Amino acid sequence: MSEIVIKDLYRDTKKYNNKEVILEGWVKTIRDSKTFGFIELNDGSFFKNVQVVITDKLENFEKVAKLSIYSCIKVIGKLIITENAKQPFEIQATNIEILSECDKDYPLQKKRHSFEYLRTIAHLRPRTNTFNAVFRIRSVTAFAIHEYFQNNGYVYVHTPIITCADCEGSAEMFKLTTMDLKKELPKDQDGKTDFSRDLFGKETYITGSGQLHGETFASAFGKIYTFGPTLRSENSNTKTHANEFWMIEPEISFCDLDELMDIEEDCLKYIVKKVMERCPEEIDFCDKFIEKGLKEKLNKLLNSEFVRIDHKDVIDILKKADKKWEFEPDYGEDLAKEHEKYITEYFNGPVFVKNWPKDIKSYYMKLNPDGKTVAAVDLEVPGAGEIMGGSQREEDYEKLLKVIKERKMDADQIYWYLDLRRYGSNIHSGFGLGFERLLMYITGIENIRDVIPYPRTPKNCDF
Amino acid sequence: MSEIVIKDLYRDTKKYNNKEVILEGWVKTIRDSKTFGFIELNDGSFFKNVQVVITDKLENFEKVAKLSIYSCIKVIGKLIITENAKQPFEIQATNIEILSECDKDYPLQKKRHSFEYLRTIAHLRPRTNTFNAVFRIRSVTAFAIHEYFQNNGYVYVHTPIITCADCEGSAEMFKLTTMDLKKELPKDQDGKTDFSRDLFGKETYITGSGQLHGETFASAFGKIYTFGPTLRSENSNTKTHANEFWMIEPEISFCDLDELMDIEEDCLKYIVKKVMERCPEEIDFCDKFIEKGLKEKLNKLLNSEFVRIDHKDVIDILKKADKKWEFEPDYGEDLAKEHEKYITEYFNGPVFVKNWPKDIKSYYMKLNPDGKTVAAVDLEVPGAGEIMGGSQREEDYEKLLKVIKERKMDADQIYWYLDLRRYGSNIHSGFGLGFERLLMYITGIENIRDVIPYPRTPKNCDF
Repeated sequence: MSEIVIKDLYRDTKKYNNKEVILEGWVKTIRDSKTFGFIELNDGSFFKNVQVVITDKLENFEKVAKLSIYSCIKVIGKLIITENAKQPFEIQATNIEILSECDKDYPLQKKRHSFEYLRTIAHLRPRTNTFNAVFRIRSVTAFAIHEYFQNNGYVYVHTPIITCADCEGSAEMFKLTTMDLKKELPKDQDGKTDFSRDLFGKETYITGSGQLHGETFASAFGKIYTFGPTLRSENSNTKTHANEFWMIEPEISFCDLDELMDIEEDCLKYIVKKVMERCPEEIDFCDKFIEKGLKEKLNKLLNSEFVRIDHKDVIDILKKADKKWEFEPDYGEDLAKEHEKYITEYFNGPVFVKNWPKDIKSYYMKLNPDGKTVAAVDLEVPGAGEIMGGSQREEDYEKLLKVIKERKMDADQIYWYLDLRRYGSNIHSGFGLGFERLLMYITGIENIRDVIPYPRTPKNCDF
Repeated sequence: MSEIVIKDLYRDTKKYNNKEVILEGWVKTIRDSKTFGFIELNDGSFFKNVQVVITDKLENFEKVAKLSIYSCIKVIGKLIITENAKQPFEIQATNIEILSECDKDYPLQKKRHSFEYLRTIAHLRPRTNTFNAVFRIRSVTAFAIHEYFQNNGYVYVHTPIITCADCEGSAEMFKLTTMDLKKELPKDQDGKTDFSRDLFGKETYITGSGQLHGETFASAFGKIYTFGPTLRSENSNTKTHANEFWMIEPEISFCDLDELMDIEEDCLKYIVKKVMERCPEEIDFCDKFIEKGLKEKLNKLLNSEFVRIDHKDVIDILKKADKKWEFEPDYGEDLAKEHEKYITEYFNGPVFVKNWPKDIKSYYMKLNPDGKTVAAVDLEVPGAGEIMGGSQREEDYEKLLKVIKERKMDADQIYWYLDLRRYGSNIHSGFGLGFERLLMYITGIENIRDVIPYPRTPKNCDF
């Protein structure tokens, strides 16, 4: 392994000026004439390439000059600051070792490819500028999230993926089994599928949320967060749905809805700020080639104070709008995409929509004194719609049990969740942050398939 | 939410001396006499409780003094440094608001409970000292791992959980489906299960490793790591097996086996060091109540240089040992638990065992020039056995294809993995770190069920 990587050279160029450096990496482009040439080299450490100058003084010059794209080389050379050139410095190679030659049918030759085509070579697409930027931003964003919560006293909890409990309706849950699906399923005496012969001895699912388990840990640690993969089996082929995605679910004791909004705003601003600081080259690239005005949008978010408005007041605004809706706004209904878009444009920035009609929200949300709405809040941002959804949780045992019964859910299955309202109950709140939605917002990428390394969508589970 | 949490008071006691503080938290213990009493209060922010002094000057003194364990209160009071007392400071309460009273059947009364019993109340056990320590250490360890890799230029990759590829044999893979398992499975014309009607249109599994996908990203970013849940369906009920656990899988380009060992050693030392720095109270507790000598063990790890020895030389040592083995050591075989134990005791510290017989290792490991061994390495640590397993990967296309065919695997299914050997192939290596094994080592906890928030093991999927 080389001691030095390209990132070091960019971050600390002066230190290496006139010094010999050794680099190992991939040939991204190569241009040559008879006696000299230029190689753009990348080692994966940095978004930008390094320009390596080769001349016929190299004993293997002819071979090097004819190398195929994405061949692997080891370069020894001197770094020279090139003040008036396009690139800030170059490496004048004194020795180049060819580590491997790339096959000639390499699909990523210089020409541009469509995102659709690149999905068919998902194992190679992180080598392109776009996906290199997107997936480095994905990594840096994930770490910024961890940092935010860890620095603010939250405990990271790994809630289980495998579950027997059906928390929000199993309609969207995958079934998990060790039974042989190629054969007849084993039957019990009554002719029903005999799940006692499955690994866990009963029906099991992949959970679609860690919230309930998260709450149990919040009742011990005060503040917790989860961050892990979530699988949902919904059969929808849209630009914003995938069957496998990552989610962050913080849960905070002694926290009401107003305080929750403070936390959500603070959290989102922290993340965006850190990504802009740590990925300036990648954000510049996205601003230029993915979403024009991206940086302006992100800077505006950092400097704005998010609007907080009740759902009913949003409906008022929508009804008054001089606009023909596909879906008519209604006080008892959810917001459609077109409404979300209108309202963020109306306020020209992020909007917290709060106090939603209880019937369209989850059973565990805190009933407001009006008896009609729950203390729920969705954060809508310009361009991406809802990226955070949270609520104050119902902390009253009797009230929670009542809703569970009204909704014909099985209270016994989540007795442990109800226990939290009997043992140490407190006003508490939490939210879910869809990681991919956030990434689409930060990068400007429009299709969720392009912010996930190996996306899984209906009829599509390649690689 | 209170502005101040208990952690602040412990970390910066002087600042708060003689000041009024407001705390919200749970009553961990309460002792009272007629006119005064002591409440141990915890708000989840810190391992230790705060002592709150109550007197009959409080208007609700009698009610407060009779509060049940794990009731929730809000305390206003003055912080007083108590130099000669057991605790460094106390809060003299001037006002106490009762936020909720805990039901009297609360199962965690003061007496000690067995770990087995506590598993049956997994939703409450993080409130005990032991599990509070363990799960905070889990969180801090996870973050230290992210920190290590991010600070060293690795890109975090979320490899998919859902897979169609059968990378290491599907024997241990869960099947995933949206088909109704309570009914007959749909059949095609030939009477076989019709997987085209499943969500992905084919058989899908939950992957047991992200390595292969990780390698594809390492060929773009140079250094990557994964950190996510792993599901394996093996039916084994042991202290070290769970069906759901978390794993870290770094993959490094331009890195051979020796450099891999350098990284593994550096990484493990970093993690242990950070956890000891950031969780001194929790580590002290584990040292006292979970594993006597834990701190000495961890400090020794930090100050030792890990031994590096070939598998065959380990077998030599085992054969020469004056010991009756349950499993006879053999040059062609894996090490048994008893062998791992002996060898770490023999060297009195962590041991890298390298260059293993090829037939007992995975197909993707680099064949050594001897034609008999592969460049694999397992790290064995005293007390916990193997916690890291890695190898240099076979970077030669023809050699890799040969092994795949010898092992009768389907090369077409992993054509994309083979592509890496045709497009930009390089010497590269990676390892897997079992997160729970690491936690067992750091905390001294002996059963994997006790380092996982909600453990899943055969016949056991509660909560």
